[in-house]
This record gives sequence, structure tokens and C-alpha cells, in this order.
Amino acid sequence: DILSDLPYTMEAVRRLLPELTTALRKGNCGRLGVVGGSVEYTGAPFYAAISMLKVGADLAHVFTPDDAAAVVKGYAPELIVHPELDPGHWQQRMDAMLVGPGLGREEKSLQVAHDVIVEAQRRAQPLVVDADGLVILTERWESLSAAPVHKAELPIILTPNAVEMDRLAMQVLQVSTLGKPWEEVRLAVSKLAARLKMNIFLKGPTDMFATADGKVRLYDAEGSARRPGGIGDILSGVIAVFLLWSTRSDVPLHTVAEAASFFVREAARRAHEQIGRGMTASDVVAQVAPLMKTIDKPYEGVYDANKL
Amino acid sequence: DILSDLPYTMEAVRRLLPELTTALRKGNCGRLGVVGGSVEYTGAPFYAAISMLKVGADLAHVFTPDDAAAVVKGYAPELIVHPELDPGHWQQRMDAMLVGPGLGREEKSLQVAHDVIVEAQRRAQPLVVDADGLVILTERWESLSAAPVHKAELPIILTPNAVEMDRLAMQVLQVSTLGKPWEEVRLAVSKLAARLKMNIFLKGPTDMFATADGKVRLYDAEGSARRPGGIGDILSGVIAVFLLWSTRSDVPLHTVAEAASFFVREAARRAHEQIGRGMTASDVVAQVAPLMKTIDKPYEGVYDANKL
Repeated sequence: DILSDLPYTMEAVRRLLPELTTALRKGNCGRLGVVGGSVEYTGAPFYAAISMLKVGADLAHVFTPDDAAAVVKGYAPELIVHPELDPGHWQQRMDAMLVGPGLGREEKSLQVAHDVIVEAQRRAQPLVVDADGLVILTERWESLSAAPVHKAELPIILTPNAVEMDRLAMQVLQVSTLGKPWEEVRLAVSKLAARLKMNIFLKGPTDMFATADGKVRLYDAEGSARRPGGIGDILSGVIAVFLLWSTRSDVPLHTVAEAASFFVREAARRAHEQIGRGMTASDVVAQVAPLMKTIDKPYEGVYDANKL
Repeated sequence: DILSDLPYTMEAVRRLLPELTTALRKGNCGRLGVVGGSVEYTGAPFYAAISMLKVGADLAHVFTPDDAAAVVKGYAPELIVHPELDPGHWQQRMDAMLVGPGLGREEKSLQVAHDVIVEAQRRAQPLVVDADGLVILTERWESLSAAPVHKAELPIILTPNAVEMDRLAMQVLQVSTLGKPWEEVRLAVSKLAARLKMNIFLKGPTDMFATADGKVRLYDAEGSARRPGGIGDILSGVIAVFLLWSTRSDVPLHTVAEAASFFVREAARRAHEQIGRGMTASDVVAQVAPLMKTIDKPYEGVYDANKL
């Protein structure tokens, strides 16, 4: 088996990839929505959305305020950018949603994020909540964790960094996690996931992934020590795509976390190796498609007996 | 020691670089603010801010008037661009400030620059004042040089060119420096720095750096004879980052000046060598990360025993 020659983490990515056949139509590999961006933060939703396409999704829709939309459009013609933060009826046409990158904390924006989370839960739609999307989740965790869909493997992943994790843990568990020994953090993230009935991908020197059943796994593939703005947005975009693909296969949620952690760390490692200390998020994006190509099965065209 | 094999000036840059470890979080290598830009000048704040990232800072915020903001955003998704010149409460969240690039001379803009200088002094926040930021500093030098923080190594650097230097010297010392023999200029820049209690980086065929104690040093690494617009903005961005890093180490201020002078001259020299006479500021920016890579320690991944 060719897979057995790959490092374990690369194999995790490979297991998620949809098979490419001539029967595929536009959208079959994923039509994803990003709800985020604000007048100050236009790079964040861009980095998330472009990374979705560059790992292999078909369509990335960005829902962003009017005063950010033209700028985000300008970054890449690949993106479909709606000049309104609220996806409204578009949400039901998306295969997965990512809410939060560059959202900002205006009351109105947080309300939109809240409604997107509720709607995704109602539809059991794959959902990633990142950055300022976690602000509203923290504020209203009681109602949001009591949403109708309750099962061990809900397709929802929260992606806090250390500060966002601390805020969540303080609010839900009355426990601070910032600067605490990792055993304490692991315990807190486990309790938090179980309490919220949501999966949590805690970004850090070692990434921690807690499933809603409270089990925690650790991932620490080699990456880069540089922390320029935007890498978290790339990660949340990649997680959203892998999460979507996992729901169409028998790949478990923790493999999504393992694969995404490895993938973005490896892309950052390569960017650092090539560009050096001055690497930016755009340099990491530039590594995404080439990295996927090294992991993917060689493309030898597609034979499909039932093509006609 | 590997450092002893480097040219002296490269060593100056190296001494400033923050060590990269997995314990770093986003922002630890620098979160800087640029106050500048105007409806005419959108390139200046861009060149300053993108250079900050490409020498190795984590985050660059640009504060620029509404009618310049969308354009500046569009140049690079890496930048966080606020559509207002006045940084307001954001200033306290920045590790260092650069005020002036592309600012223009509208009364309102100069007032914002003035307030940013006052606030930076009050907080002893690393500050670089460039271009039209020097106009307001010249006009109100008496009150600004009497600001509360007074010590030999204030983290503030003015970066005048010959004309801006002449204006400052005329106003403060009633002495003209334009076209004068370099010994006279050196004397004037020494007096000026002592009088203003600020450090002065005078850009010229030979760069002069006067510390607030009146001591002057000269730097004349090889550069390019081409003087397209924007190179001064790159220099002020690089100085701001090196200044910030110096405040976190035992590296003296004159090493900041030496390192920045060498760094930008060498980047311009390389751009000229590659592109020829038609080189622009963007070609110099393209040299920044690669040059830093040749100076930086080779990246061999990061081992951190306390990673978890």
C-alpha cells in the first residue's frame, strides 16, 4: 500500500481527500462560506478563504461588510465575495461554514455570528468558529451549547488561541488557563469540550484537540517559530475543508485535527525555510497547493468506465 | 563564534534579532503602528509597513485617512489598515509607532501627528518621526522637546533628509545646513539632538546618527545611487522595528542606526544590481526578506524542552 510509505500525519491528510473522477461537478469538492472581515481586518477572511481553495475545495464564498468587500474581492478573483456579513439564505447552500476571521467585536457583527452558529447547529452543518466568533460563543455559551443537535461527533470545531481559550475557560469553568502547566490546560480543554458539547482545537506550541466526549489528543509536528498575523486564518480555513470532507467519509474528527495541524505546520515550516524570518501569511499560502501536491496521489488523468 | 565571521555591520543587525522559539505568540516579535498616508500618498505608509513585516515583525497596523485606506489595504492583505489617521486607543496596544510617511501637511493631519508624538513620549513608547511628521515637530519643537520623559537613550528617532534637517536646524538653532560642508552639518546635528533631547538619523550620502547626548556617528555602507521615491519609507519602517527590538535587549541605540543604515543600503544595492536603473521601491522591498535570511542564523527548526 502506497499510503504506508507516508509519514503518519501525511497519511491522515490523504485519507480525507475526495477522490477525483470525471463524474465530479463544480461544488462537489466543497462549497464553503466564510463569515468575517471588518473595515480594519480584510486580510483575515481572505487568508481563510483562499486556503480553502488551495487545499482543494471548489468554491469559497466570503460574507463581509460592505466597507470591506471590494478590498477582499481585489485580493483574489477566485473568491466570491458578498458585500454583507449576514449570509442569510446563502447559508443553506454552503456545505460548511467558518465564522470569525477578522470579524471584529461590533454588537451587530457578533449577532450575525451568533445566528450563523445557531443555524449551522440546526442544520448539523459542518462549522468552524474562530477568532472573534469565539467572543459571542463565550458570551452566550449556555444557549449555544444547548442547541438541538447533540451527539458525540458534532461537526463543529472551535479554534481558540491561548487568550481565547482562557476567556472561554473563565466564563464556562471559572478556571484560568493562560500560562498554566500543560496538564492543567489539557484538563480544562477536556472539561470545556464536554461541557459545551463541541470539539475544541486549541492552537499553541503543541496543538490540543478535545472531542465532545472529553478525550484530548496532542499534535506537535514541526512548524515555524515565526508568528506573523494571518496563519491562524489559514489554519481555520484548512480545518473547515477537512471537517467537511470528513463528514463524507469514515474518517474520525480527530484525524481532521491531526491532518490540519500537520498540514499548516508543514506549510509554515516550508515558508520559513524558503523565505526566512521575513515570511508573512502570504508566503504560507503560497506553500499550500504545492504541499498538497506532494501529499496527494500522483495525478494520472482519470479513467471512468461510466463516463458517457 | 559564527558572528565573528560576519562583516561588522551584518553583526549589528544580528545582535538585534529576537530569538525564535516555539514559546513565541503572535505579536511577540513586534506589533507596530504606522500613522501616515493621505489622499495623494498611499505608497509611503505601505512601504514602511510592509518592510516592518519583511524584516520580521509580526503585525503592522496602518492608520490612514478614509480616502487612502482602501487603496493601502489593497496593496497587501498582510496589513491591518484602519480608515482613520488618528490611532486613538489603539496606540497603547502598539509596541512601537512610526509617524509621518505620506502624511501631508493638512492642519488636521499635523495635529494628529503631534498628539501621537506626545502620547508616545508620555508612554516612553519607541517612536520614529519621519517626513511630514517632522513638519509639526519643527513647528512645535519647544513644547515637544520639553516632554516629560528625559533621558540619554530615549526610544525616539527623527529621520530627516537634508531639506527636513535644514528646516529643523533653522527653526531650533537658526543655522542653515543645506549644502554646507559635512563638518558643519555634523556639528549642527549634534547640537540639534542635544537641544531636542531626541536621537536624529540624518539621511544622506553618508548617514549621520546623533544621540541625545550630542555624540555623532557616521555610516556609509555601499548602497545604490538611484533615489526613487519610497526608499526613505522603507528605511523608517526598518528603523522602527530595530528600535523596538533594541529596547528589549542590551543593544545600544547607535547599533540600531548602524544596522538600519547598512540593511537598507544593502537591499538597495542588491535591487540596483538585479534590476538596474529602473529599480523602484517595490524592488527594494523584494530584497528585504532574502537579505534578512542571509544575515539571520540558519533556521534549523526549533527545539524547546518546555514546549508543552
